[in-house]
Amino acid sequence: MLIVMETGHTEEQLRGVLSAVEGAKAKAHVIPGAQNTAVAVTGNVGPLDVRLFEDLPGVREAIPVSSAYRLAGREARRADTVISLAGGKVRIGGSALVVIAGPCAVESEEQTLRIAKQVARAGARILRGGAFKPRTSPYSFQGLGLAGLKILASARQATGLPVVTEILDPRSLDIVCEYADILQIGARNMQNFALLKEVGRVRKPVMLKRGFSATIEEWLAAAEYILAEGNPDVMLCERGIRTFVGSARARTTLDLNAVPVVKRRSHLPILVDPSHGTGMRDKVAPMARAAVAAGAHGIMVEVHDRPEEALSDGPQALSPEAFARLMGELRAMGPILGFTV
Amino acid sequence: MLIVMETGHTEEQLRGVLSAVEGAKAKAHVIPGAQNTAVAVTGNVGPLDVRLFEDLPGVREAIPVSSAYRLAGREARRADTVISLAGGKVRIGGSALVVIAGPCAVESEEQTLRIAKQVARAGARILRGGAFKPRTSPYSFQGLGLAGLKILASARQATGLPVVTEILDPRSLDIVCEYADILQIGARNMQNFALLKEVGRVRKPVMLKRGFSATIEEWLAAAEYILAEGNPDVMLCERGIRTFVGSARARTTLDLNAVPVVKRRSHLPILVDPSHGTGMRDKVAPMARAAVAAGAHGIMVEVHDRPEEALSDGPQALSPEAFARLMGELRAMGPILGFTV
Amino acid sequence: MLIVMETGHTEEQLRGVLSAVEGAKAKAHVIPGAQNTAVAVTGNVGPLDVRLFEDLPGVREAIPVSSAYRLAGREARRADTVISLAGGKVRIGGSALVVIAGPCAVESEEQTLRIAKQVARAGARILRGGAFKPRTSPYSFQGLGLAGLKILASARQATGLPVVTEILDPRSLDIVCEYADILQIGARNMQNFALLKEVGRVRKPVMLKRGFSATIEEWLAAAEYILAEGNPDVMLCERGIRTFVGSARARTTLDLNAVPVVKRRSHLPILVDPSHGTGMRDKVAPMARAAVAAGAHGIMVEVHDRPEEALSDGPQALSPEAFARLMGELRAMGPILGFTV
Amino acid sequence: MLIVMETGHTEEQLRGVLSAVEGAKAKAHVIPGAQNTAVAVTGNVGPLDVRLFEDLPGVREAIPVSSAYRLAGREARRADTVISLAGGKVRIGGSALVVIAGPCAVESEEQTLRIAKQVARAGARILRGGAFKPRTSPYSFQGLGLAGLKILASARQATGLPVVTEILDPRSLDIVCEYADILQIGARNMQNFALLKEVGRVRKPVMLKRGFSATIEEWLAAAEYILAEGNPDVMLCERGIRTFVGSARARTTLDLNAVPVVKRRSHLPILVDPSHGTGMRDKVAPMARAAVAAGAHGIMVEVHDRPEEALSDGPQALSPEAFARLMGELRAMGPILGFTV
Repeated sequence: MLIVMETGHTEEQLRGVLSAVEGAKAKAHVIPGAQNTAVAVTGNVGPLDVRLFEDLPGVREAIPVSSAYRLAGREARRADTVISLAGGKVRIGGSALVVIAGPCAVESEEQTLRIAKQVARAGARILRGGAFKPRTSPYSFQGLGLAGLKILASARQATGLPVVTEILDPRSLDIVCEYADILQIGARNMQNFALLKEVGRVRKPVMLKRGFSATIEEWLAAAEYILAEGNPDVMLCERGIRTFVGSARARTTLDLNAVPVVKRRSHLPILVDPSHGTGMRDKVAPMARAAVAAGAHGIMVEVHDRPEEALSDGPQALSPEAFARLMGELRAMGPILGFTV
Repeated sequence: MLIVMETGHTEEQLRGVLSAVEGAKAKAHVIPGAQNTAVAVTGNVGPLDVRLFEDLPGVREAIPVSSAYRLAGREARRADTVISLAGGKVRIGGSALVVIAGPCAVESEEQTLRIAKQVARAGARILRGGAFKPRTSPYSFQGLGLAGLKILASARQATGLPVVTEILDPRSLDIVCEYADILQIGARNMQNFALLKEVGRVRKPVMLKRGFSATIEEWLAAAEYILAEGNPDVMLCERGIRTFVGSARARTTLDLNAVPVVKRRSHLPILVDPSHGTGMRDKVAPMARAAVAAGAHGIMVEVHDRPEEALSDGPQALSPEAFARLMGELRAMGPILGFTV
Repeated sequence: MLIVMETGHTEEQLRGVLSAVEGAKAKAHVIPGAQNTAVAVTGNVGPLDVRLFEDLPGVREAIPVSSAYRLAGREARRADTVISLAGGKVRIGGSALVVIAGPCAVESEEQTLRIAKQVARAGARILRGGAFKPRTSPYSFQGLGLAGLKILASARQATGLPVVTEILDPRSLDIVCEYADILQIGARNMQNFALLKEVGRVRKPVMLKRGFSATIEEWLAAAEYILAEGNPDVMLCERGIRTFVGSARARTTLDLNAVPVVKRRSHLPILVDPSHGTGMRDKVAPMARAAVAAGAHGIMVEVHDRPEEALSDGPQALSPEAFARLMGELRAMGPILGFTV
Repeated sequence: MLIVMETGHTEEQLRGVLSAVEGAKAKAHVIPGAQNTAVAVTGNVGPLDVRLFEDLPGVREAIPVSSAYRLAGREARRADTVISLAGGKVRIGGSALVVIAGPCAVESEEQTLRIAKQVARAGARILRGGAFKPRTSPYSFQGLGLAGLKILASARQATGLPVVTEILDPRSLDIVCEYADILQIGARNMQNFALLKEVGRVRKPVMLKRGFSATIEEWLAAAEYILAEGNPDVMLCERGIRTFVGSARARTTLDLNAVPVVKRRSHLPILVDPSHGTGMRDKVAPMARAAVAAGAHGIMVEVHDRPEEALSDGPQALSPEAFARLMGELRAMGPILGFTV
């Protein structure tokens, strides 16, 4: 931490700061400056609260230096984390672009299998589908639950695609683990620490979506909850942040800037969900291409062949044809940007 | 819903919209206008997704009208909800201003009792204290758990003050209910729907804090999850929203505008937490006074007599003396603004 | 500036940083730490760009310390600035609460005089009224211009109230100075540096509204443009910031937290405009009271006796009766909170 | 406008609304609904203020329908606007991707010519360079002014590249028009209406940057100020919006979602500035590629060959080599995404 004294502080005020640092069992280094004296604090165990020092007389500002995460950072691990699925046939975080596709919600076996086959044919490597749906209103469709999980498992059987689905409640961990290949933590649960700890204790990859108002620092600290429990297979997924820009269609702004920032700070794979991030069909393909051009390790896209019948989020789903067209564009971009599809 | 057609739309496009409305089992009313034709949609059961219509050719915009909540709204209940505690001695939502005070976290029996007595003496009517603490980093103090709950119960015994404490996990519902008088749902769990449903099934008042990026609409829809399960005793608590304004001290902006807005739209009591909302001791008293002047039914304030020893959030706690001074100011404001303390 | 090295940086990387600091004509102080080495930079003239150092290999973060303002800060001047008007009869920034009131726009001589007399009678000390109106759409009413300024001057004559009005264009400086007592810089022009410099060259008090997305730091730096040109009489006015909360009524969130923050960092008077900040009549009085309870030196309120005829912002204006009621409440709060009205 | 009545409103309240609509010289259409009665308002001239109706008893909400712009919208003009420069050799808004490059600020003739030649060689079609610089602090470098304009003109002569530069003050319109090919309005001046009107009166293309907190609607309404004065050649440039995400490096979040949204709503060309939008060299190339993949008509990039000497924003400038590499990638993406470079 760096403590900056006010111009014109007294000697007594500086002594007060030094003794507060000592009280916090840390070491103070006084740095005289032209305008302001500063006090650098080192040797503390655990993060210090800046506010402990800012309230002292004569202090202008205290600036923290340590992160809330360690295992998630590049400093803990230089090499990119690559998560392996389906016996190594699908790898997330390496040089292959991973495309996850499927319906927003599992609605029926027929619907899910039909769409799963279409996305598999077009080149998706992982199937998505919600069995437990987090909905703003208690009166909206809440998902099929266990029946939905079983349908996902049979779609995996039919297509060979591993399956990702959301978990909402620590009490359903066993049942979701029985059927899913990747556990998704949704944006609304990014800081549901009880749930994070629970998925940290199993050996299943976890996809951690970014909270609507989470900074990159907080997102990595949430990943740290999972890593710290012993599960190293965490992938991150940007899905839009809350800003002043919004509409009845979508209340979030897809933040592609997160892609290069996460790649710099963390070794964990970073994916992008342009479907929930934009909420609008005609923005999905442009933003999917943009996510890949920005360097994402993968994208997750909603596909539905009868969007007008969808029980949730139909209007943001791509048709199978539009999805196949997008896959063609991404495949062509691969050699230019250095990835395979 | 109101669907606005583009200027110069064709007859066929309008017919397409009308047939889509019919497909959604609703009734369309065409409204010719000088610049734009509009189509009003009525008779739908459940909310319609605006995006179903916005993708149709010739449509400029679709504007939703229904809310995501019913029971939480003024339309469901004109009279203010008043929540009664301690056999009616404490009432939240009526003409009495309710002050909740105590340490951020329960750290020890000695600390909690000492502070509980101080705040009771100064006029607090409810004791706060965290036994399970949600922390951004897994390496920060996570609370005493069950031991903390027992300490709170003995502080209640010693002071007569009912107790509010946070619940993080649906699996600890029974144990928290055994010791607490009010269950607090924290900002990070505002849309943890598994937890909301669970607290909706018990007969304990719930304090639902506003999520960092929740609109008033979403907040009331979250309250609806609790109300819809049968628990009518929900109070709301504003604690700051995430905006571009932030600092190492506090990453939220206390939104006092929420007070008059909630009072207009909902019958549920609205409280304000200026301690977490500002994160800084010297802003707590000004913003507490401001919350009361804006019409809040109550405030929740952190008090600690040895903030430099506090295991969490010490720097935002008021001293017992500053708290007593604040209580005096609020008492004096009562007759002017029409409340009792 | 404080430069924090990555864990495991090399000696060569550290040497690179030291030589970059030297290149920037500043002095480097190496501070060894348990986890991270830091380099404190002192002796620089003018602010250093953090990004100069963050791009160097081995650097984790560079943290700036200097402010973008000097004259506006408490460090330059401990005592509060008090701005004197009307031969000292009105003082802004001292222990008297200053209430500014009047119509949003000057619409006619009759309307302005009528309202001016009503607000004077109720206790307003300064009259507001827009002659040049900044409007989002070019098709909205743009103000009466020079005719409006003359009406304001005659309202001053009739009531004795000094007058504040907005200036939009540096080319109208002379004419606005001829008629107004306080020059208002609106939120949209907070960083219109050409205009700021111009009003810095005259001897008229300036009211600088906060930009919709301005941090406190940027706001004070904008005030610095005026102060640096030689005009010491700057008052600040909070009028709402842009957040994810918004509606067709008001696209800003009144940020009362700015009041205690500005009072800590700056000696300039801080006022609040709850009319534009909330955009809604029934929120004006609660937020006006809250602003005063938070410690504002004054408030600016729109009053209109025939809001349905108002050419701009009628729906956010208080009636003269509601304004008088508010003044009564503020007067009663004075002795409790230590101000006179 | 659509006015939604509360459930259980009275007949008298409905009559009050109808008479208010009549008073506003518009026509009311009552639409009975299952839950709520609505009143559609048509035939009004000019936008109605929603708040006029929301304050009436029995009204739940009033929803506006009209835009603040007309000429800027797709409805006014279906075909894309293509702006022609340099006798038609450079066209902005068509199928060619336009790359604008150059230093942030004009620092000297030697520096500007050197960089201009480098970017021309790599494929830039327009030269950028600031002569008047808007700076947060009055103590930062403010640009060379007229001398800078002359240097830009001689760089144009040397390379054949048309020149874009920022205008800050309506009083410098003549002089900037004499030297520049495109007038840039910066983000801070997006709602400087005096300046917008002025550049609307000349026959020079204008690049209007998006304000830090401007919605798309407000941005297009600002463009409307220019169009309404008679200048049809307006291009838009996204450069980042203010959100809760920020750092000492960059206080904005580049919003690429604006690209497909603007293309849907407006016929004006849309460009992206990833240099100011990200503020950090290693994010510029990823976000530039992403902008193009999202469908932007062009990008504007800062290039500097000696960033450590740059008087402003050096750390976000690409080196000439990195710029040439980026141009190569964009050229290769052209055939896939359907544009030429």
